[in-house]
Amino acid sequence: MKSDTTILVVSASPRRYGNARLVAEGVRRIAIEIENVEAIKIDVYDYDIKPCKGCVSDDVKLCKLPCVIEDDMRKLYNLVEESDGIIFITPVYWYNVPGPLKNFIDRLTVFENAIFIEGRSRLEGKVAGFIAIGNDTGALAVIQNLMAILNSMGVAIPPWALAYHESEDDPTENKSFILDVANVVRGVVLLIKALKGSEKVTYWYRTDEEYQKKVLNIFKNVSEEFKKLKQHTNT
Amino acid sequence: MKSDTTILVVSASPRRYGNARLVAEGVRRIAIEIENVEAIKIDVYDYDIKPCKGCVSDDVKLCKLPCVIEDDMRKLYNLVEESDGIIFITPVYWYNVPGPLKNFIDRLTVFENAIFIEGRSRLEGKVAGFIAIGNDTGALAVIQNLMAILNSMGVAIPPWALAYHESEDDPTENKSFILDVANVVRGVVLLIKALKGSEKVTYWYRTDEEYQKKVLNIFKNVSEEFKKLKQHTNT
Amino acid sequence: MKSDTTILVVSASPRRYGNARLVAEGVRRIAIEIENVEAIKIDVYDYDIKPCKGCVSDDVKLCKLPCVIEDDMRKLYNLVEESDGIIFITPVYWYNVPGPLKNFIDRLTVFENAIFIEGRSRLEGKVAGFIAIGNDTGALAVIQNLMAILNSMGVAIPPWALAYHESEDDPTENKSFILDVANVVRGVVLLIKALKGSEKVTYWYRTDEEYQKKVLNIFKNVSEEFKKLKQHTNT
Amino acid sequence: MKSDTTILVVSASPRRYGNARLVAEGVRRIAIEIENVEAIKIDVYDYDIKPCKGCVSDDVKLCKLPCVIEDDMRKLYNLVEESDGIIFITPVYWYNVPGPLKNFIDRLTVFENAIFIEGRSRLEGKVAGFIAIGNDTGALAVIQNLMAILNSMGVAIPPWALAYHESEDDPTENKSFILDVANVVRGVVLLIKALKGSEKVTYWYRTDEEYQKKVLNIFKNVSEEFKKLKQHTNT
Repeated sequence: MKSDTTILVVSASPRRYGNARLVAEGVRRIAIEIENVEAIKIDVYDYDIKPCKGCVSDDVKLCKLPCVIEDDMRKLYNLVEESDGIIFITPVYWYNVPGPLKNFIDRLTVFENAIFIEGRSRLEGKVAGFIAIGNDTGALAVIQNLMAILNSMGVAIPPWALAYHESEDDPTENKSFILDVANVVRGVVLLIKALKGSEKVTYWYRTDEEYQKKVLNIFKNVSEEFKKLKQHTNT
Repeated sequence: MKSDTTILVVSASPRRYGNARLVAEGVRRIAIEIENVEAIKIDVYDYDIKPCKGCVSDDVKLCKLPCVIEDDMRKLYNLVEESDGIIFITPVYWYNVPGPLKNFIDRLTVFENAIFIEGRSRLEGKVAGFIAIGNDTGALAVIQNLMAILNSMGVAIPPWALAYHESEDDPTENKSFILDVANVVRGVVLLIKALKGSEKVTYWYRTDEEYQKKVLNIFKNVSEEFKKLKQHTNT
Repeated sequence: MKSDTTILVVSASPRRYGNARLVAEGVRRIAIEIENVEAIKIDVYDYDIKPCKGCVSDDVKLCKLPCVIEDDMRKLYNLVEESDGIIFITPVYWYNVPGPLKNFIDRLTVFENAIFIEGRSRLEGKVAGFIAIGNDTGALAVIQNLMAILNSMGVAIPPWALAYHESEDDPTENKSFILDVANVVRGVVLLIKALKGSEKVTYWYRTDEEYQKKVLNIFKNVSEEFKKLKQHTNT
Repeated sequence: MKSDTTILVVSASPRRYGNARLVAEGVRRIAIEIENVEAIKIDVYDYDIKPCKGCVSDDVKLCKLPCVIEDDMRKLYNLVEESDGIIFITPVYWYNVPGPLKNFIDRLTVFENAIFIEGRSRLEGKVAGFIAIGNDTGALAVIQNLMAILNSMGVAIPPWALAYHESEDDPTENKSFILDVANVVRGVVLLIKALKGSEKVTYWYRTDEEYQKKVLNIFKNVSEEFKKLKQHTNT
C-alpha cells in the first residue's frame, strides 16, 4: 500500500559519491524501510537552479507562481509542493551551505511569498529536518540558520531535528551520528502524522536495540554500495 | 473549566516596565483570553538563578535532579516541568540573550541530560516559541541560536515560531510584530494540541479581522496599564 | 599620483539599480574621494561564477591554482589578489547571503588552501569590511557569519567593520547607516596602512561635521544618479 | 624590561582545572614567554559580576562610568582599560557562551557607550582573539557571535583570530588546535604593535619547527601542572 506521507530528501553535494549523498541515500531508505513513507531524493547540484532575481524587493506582488525564471526549479517546485516534509543534508562550506543550496532556498521565496498572493505560504505546515556534514567545525552555525529560515517560511520542526558529523572520519562509522540521522527522519515523519491528526506522539528519540540494528545495517549497505560505485567510477 | 494545556512565558528583562515584560504580559493574556489555555509568567531577573557549574563535563552521570545548586531554579524547574510549552521573550543584548537568560538555559541542562539518567530528556516533546525585542539589529541572530538550543534539548517548534521588533519605536504600535507575537502563541498552542492528538491543524498563521482586533486590543490595554504603572513607579 | 592601496568592492545584487549596488557605488567613491585609494567595484551577479566542486574534500592537495573550473573567477581571482582589502555589500536573503555571493566565497577556498600548497593563504593579511542591506531582520546573522569566514581565510578586520540597513526605507536617507558605511571604508583603509607600517592609527570612527557633509553628499549624488538610470531603464 | 603591551586573558569556566582554564594558562605563558608581552589572566567565574541593568534602554546618557552596579566589574573595568588586547577562552555551553561570560560582555556596554558620553568607545582600537572549547559542536556559532559583538564595540580582529576544540579528547593532545591557539596570541600581539606603529607585519600564521616545539612544550607543562593540581584537590 502506498503511504500518504512523502518526504523530500534534499542534499547539496558536488561529489557524486561523497558523504552528503551517502547520508541522503541512508535517509531515503530509513524513511521507506523503517518509517514506511514515500521518499524522493534529489541533489541540488544535479539541477539547473538559477539565482533568485529578488523581484520581491521591487514589488511584493511580483513574486508569484510561476516564478519568472524558467529552469529546473519548475520541476523541483512540484516535488516540494507534493512533499509533507523536507530533510536537508548539506556539507558545511565555510560555516554555511554551499551556494547551490542557497540558490534553492532563495528560490523557495515564491512559495513563502504566496502569503501575499494567495493568503498563505505554500510551505506552511510542512515539516523539516537538518543534517550537516563537514570535516571541520561549523555544522551548528549552518543548522541554526537553516532552522530559522525554514521556520520563517512556515515550516514546523520536530524535536531532535538536527544531526551533524564534524570530522574527516567516515560518517557511517559514527554511530551516534547515524542514530541522530535516523531520529531526524523519525521526528519528521511523526510530526507530519501528528499534524494530520493521524497519530498521537508518545515518545520521540528512539534508541532500542532493534532500531539501532536496522539503522546501522541500512547505513552499512549504503556505505558498501557507495564504495563500489566510487571504485567503478574511478577506473 | 481549567485547560489541560499550560504555557510558561519566560521574559528576561531588568526593566520592570520595559518592552520585554510588556510583551510577555501580552503573550500571557493572548494565551488565556484567545487560546483558552493556562499561562504562567516569569522573568528570570526576578529569581536567583546561579550559573551552571558544568558538572556534566566531569561526568555525564553527575548532572541529575535535583541539581546540586540550591537556588530559585528549584521552583522554576517545577514550572518548566508542568508546562507543555515555553515562550521566550528576550531583549537583544549584543546580538544575544542577556546573561541571566543564558544562566536559565544553561541550568536546563539537567532536564536534557535526563537522557543519560532516565533514558529521556524531560523537555522532549514540549513546544517553544521565540520573541526578541531590541532597539537595533540582532534579533534573528538571537532567535536562530535559541531555536537550535531548544531543539537540541528535545523541544518541537511550530511554524512561524518567531517574532521580533528591532526599533526604538513602541512595539505596541508595530502591528505586524504584534500579529506575529500572537501567532507565536497560537502556533505553540496548536502544536501542543496536535502532539497530544487532541486537535488536527488545518491552518496556522491567522490574520482575520476579528483576531487582529482582539490581539491589538489586548496589547493596547497592556500598554496603557504599563504606562500607568511606570508613571506611578517614577513618582 | 596613484595610491598603492586598492580596495575591491564586492556587491551581490540581481537588481541593477537596487540598494546594494547603490551603496557599493557610494563605497567606491568614498574610497577614492575621501580615503584617496584605488577602488574597483564588481557585482557577483554580473559574472559567471560556477559552484565550488569541493575537490579539497577528496584531497587537500587537489585544490590549487589555477582552479579547475574555467569561468569568470579567473578574472576575479586576479582582482582579489591585487587588492589590499575587500568590502562586501550584500542584500539579506533569508538571514544569509544570496547564492551567487556564497559561490564567490566558496571559490575563494583555493586562495585559502594555498596554505597547503604554497605554505600561506593568499588572503592572509588582507583586510575586510561587511555591509548588509535588507527590508527586514537578519543583517547581523549575515555579518557575523561573513566575519568568521573571512577571518578563517586569514583576513584582518578593523574596528567598526560592519554597517547594516534593515528597513524598506531608502538607505540613503538613513544617516547613521551612511556614516557607518563610510567608517567601514575608513577602517579598512586605516588598517591596510597600519599593517603596511605606513601609518599609525590615532582614532577610528570619524563623525566630524566636514566628514559627515562629504559622505552624505557623495550618497546624495549616487542616489540621484541611480534614480535617473532606473527611470531611463524602465522607459 | 617591561613590555608596553598588555594582554588580558579572559576565561569563563566553573571548573578550576577544566580545559578552558588550562588553555587560558597556556595562552598567558605564550604571551609572556614567546611574544614577550605582559599578560593578566582572569576567569569570570571567580568574580562577582552582576547582570547589566539595561539603563541604556531608558536613556543612552544614563549608561556611563562609573557603572551604577557596585561589584567586581569595578576592578575588571580597570584591567580591560589597561589592556591592549583581550583573548577570550570560553567553553561552549549550548552553542553559546556561559551566562557569566555574557554578563561580563553585557557589562562592557558602559565602555562602548562612552561614544555617547565621551565621544569615543573605550574599547576602540583594542584587539581581540577568540578560543572556544567544547565536547561537541557549536564552537563556530559562539565565535562568530563574539567576533561581531566585540567588533561592534570598536575592537580590531587580527587574521586567524579563532581556535576551537570540539571533542571529548584532551585539547593539549590536539596539536593543530594548540598551534591555532598560539597563533591567536601571535596575531593579537602583532596587530597591537602594528596599530601602535611600532612594527610592520610581514606574515601572520607561524608554523616553523622551533615555534611548534616551544608552544607544545608550554602546553605540555601546563597540562602536567593542572593534572597534579587536580589530583591534589580531589584528595
